[in-house]
Amino acid sequence: MDASTYSKTALILVDPFNDFLSEGGKFYPLTKETVEGIHLVQNLKKLIAGARERKIQIIYAPHHHTAEGDYLNWRFLSPSHQGSKNVVLFEKNSWGAEFHPELLAAKGDLIASNHWTGSGFANTDLDFLLKMHNIERIVLAGMRANTCIDSTARYGVELGYHVTLIKDGIGAFNWEEIRVTVETTFPNYGHAMLSTEEFLNTPMP
Amino acid sequence: MDASTYSKTALILVDPFNDFLSEGGKFYPLTKETVEGIHLVQNLKKLIAGARERKIQIIYAPHHHTAEGDYLNWRFLSPSHQGSKNVVLFEKNSWGAEFHPELLAAKGDLIASNHWTGSGFANTDLDFLLKMHNIERIVLAGMRANTCIDSTARYGVELGYHVTLIKDGIGAFNWEEIRVTVETTFPNYGHAMLSTEEFLNTPMP
Amino acid sequence: MDASTYSKTALILVDPFNDFLSEGGKFYPLTKETVEGIHLVQNLKKLIAGARERKIQIIYAPHHHTAEGDYLNWRFLSPSHQGSKNVVLFEKNSWGAEFHPELLAAKGDLIASNHWTGSGFANTDLDFLLKMHNIERIVLAGMRANTCIDSTARYGVELGYHVTLIKDGIGAFNWEEIRVTVETTFPNYGHAMLSTEEFLNTPMP
Amino acid sequence: MDASTYSKTALILVDPFNDFLSEGGKFYPLTKETVEGIHLVQNLKKLIAGARERKIQIIYAPHHHTAEGDYLNWRFLSPSHQGSKNVVLFEKNSWGAEFHPELLAAKGDLIASNHWTGSGFANTDLDFLLKMHNIERIVLAGMRANTCIDSTARYGVELGYHVTLIKDGIGAFNWEEIRVTVETTFPNYGHAMLSTEEFLNTPMP
Repeated sequence: MDASTYSKTALILVDPFNDFLSEGGKFYPLTKETVEGIHLVQNLKKLIAGARERKIQIIYAPHHHTAEGDYLNWRFLSPSHQGSKNVVLFEKNSWGAEFHPELLAAKGDLIASNHWTGSGFANTDLDFLLKMHNIERIVLAGMRANTCIDSTARYGVELGYHVTLIKDGIGAFNWEEIRVTVETTFPNYGHAMLSTEEFLNTPMP
Repeated sequence: MDASTYSKTALILVDPFNDFLSEGGKFYPLTKETVEGIHLVQNLKKLIAGARERKIQIIYAPHHHTAEGDYLNWRFLSPSHQGSKNVVLFEKNSWGAEFHPELLAAKGDLIASNHWTGSGFANTDLDFLLKMHNIERIVLAGMRANTCIDSTARYGVELGYHVTLIKDGIGAFNWEEIRVTVETTFPNYGHAMLSTEEFLNTPMP
Repeated sequence: MDASTYSKTALILVDPFNDFLSEGGKFYPLTKETVEGIHLVQNLKKLIAGARERKIQIIYAPHHHTAEGDYLNWRFLSPSHQGSKNVVLFEKNSWGAEFHPELLAAKGDLIASNHWTGSGFANTDLDFLLKMHNIERIVLAGMRANTCIDSTARYGVELGYHVTLIKDGIGAFNWEEIRVTVETTFPNYGHAMLSTEEFLNTPMP
Repeated sequence: MDASTYSKTALILVDPFNDFLSEGGKFYPLTKETVEGIHLVQNLKKLIAGARERKIQIIYAPHHHTAEGDYLNWRFLSPSHQGSKNVVLFEKNSWGAEFHPELLAAKGDLIASNHWTGSGFANTDLDFLLKMHNIERIVLAGMRANTCIDSTARYGVELGYHVTLIKDGIGAFNWEEIRVTVETTFPNYGHAMLSTEEFLNTPMP
């Protein structure tokens, strides 16, 4: 991170929902080990605070909120769609589809339109919002390492952005999923990888 | 229209909002002449009813609902963005941003995510929803001829769809805008043009 | 045009092929009246020279070169596809598919991948190349006013670019097509319109 | 694979270049272990023959051929771009940028426009060509497991296709990259995984 590029950088928070990050969330039994093990909520809080101090644009990239009738008559469902349907993940107007209470959006933050599958860019206005705010560099954190995070990062590169992954700012269903993202996939296409601490140690404006 | 293709066809209703189509709507002073002159609301009602009878999928392609903070810090605004901002068009949670009361969505209809500018496809999930429902042909009606309708039709062709325009199913700010769309732009790239009556005269399943 | 933005501006030349712009070209009988009437080749030459002087990036957005087997087994053809097929427009490896000899690309210019239909952005790498060169503003000239130019301009706005149209830098099959683009469509969504002379009168760096 | 869907299925061959697959190719020292270990060329030959017998559309998704001037003045390079630049990978008009001699395209096959990074869909006409040929299902094979194959598969799902991975039809720089793709990433978003043998054992039309 270079202070001269802050005005062209955005922190993208992918799916920081209660269903993923809070005790009682529908997928918390699956995510708990890595979320707690890596102190994900604390790290995301620090990232958000650090971004605000540095005037780095914050933008949420939220998954679709499941509602009745969704996926009806679709010609085929991916495992991600099937999983969301089965448990009514991020159920519309429910607590599970709210952002974690310590990770709420504030005035000036942006919220992209909801994505149906993995990439925060696919079939949403994320690229458009980034362009209208003159963003050239994105920093990714949130859930889930090998699915939404990996897909959003790949799209970011294909769309011409400089992409940084926060390696201890992502959770998953097990440690292997995080390891694979950090070691085997992202380094082959992404531009930079930082820890939360390294992100916070970049100079203030 | 060919009965054998109904299951692969969708009727796309672009921006059938009160602000465009109802007495008292913010842009009704501008649209009234063509909307009333062409009996647009009646024609759209007939199209919707005809589509339901023929089991043609209906999908709404709605413009962004203006909310406080929108367009803030954008690097430049197009005339469309400036106009929406100036009058707070389709204001979020307002009557103007509701669909015309005679043109409401029913169970089984789809509603794409909101578009920021002209094309119902750009930065939305419209293409994805059409694909998941196996749609190959789209029929366009709604507002406004030379902006959203023309842009949505152009994107439809570029995305590989067969595109039909309902020539008396579109309104505008003046007759010239409709004439231009029907005579000078659409015929050069679109696949078919029908009147509401011709659409309704296609055989029932 | 503002000198401070030159490094973020690109001049996009759409389809400056012999088949459109040169005596003997396959569509020259259709384009001759406006191309000669508006002095299009001379204006495009001036635009290219002016862009080079100002270090404005030049990028060509060329239509697909028709080859044997193209359009075979396509599920439906648009009028544009049908027309290209009928006359073997911009035939691969033919003179008609070369750029006009006075409008050739030079070292440092970019050439986007070929487009199949109207928009220079659709199904090509134009957006990606612009992003990788840090372009935020595009200036459009070339062929054909109400089809490729209008579609490329609409996509440009949807993709977040500032879009300028050179009003005497575009040709068509008749004057009405140019008039419609300049008066009835572009002003509703585009950001700026300049004549060739106005473009050239912007200050030098 | 279900015989009733053959006409809606395409086999996508990603980057079957000499530089990846042939002794003497620029990256063959890196790919040799998995390419030879998994009998990749033989498997791809069988897949191609099996697809032809079943009238499954074959489409190549080739990477950009590096030429002089590429990547010049780009605002940042991803590791993939840097690697291609460093070794002049798939050099334009060179043997390394030709398809492996046993995997050549035949009449009726399609070749998508070249991709710059990982996904065969990003900034190319692959989605458009698939739509024009009525394809709903894609079967992926080629190079390289955790980069182009994984990215193309992710885009395929986001674009609404049914995506099948041929698990012994992909190579990489080491076994871990294949394992990760087959075990940790693809199963979370892809629809089906088959071996070459399973693909060939599907009934003939």
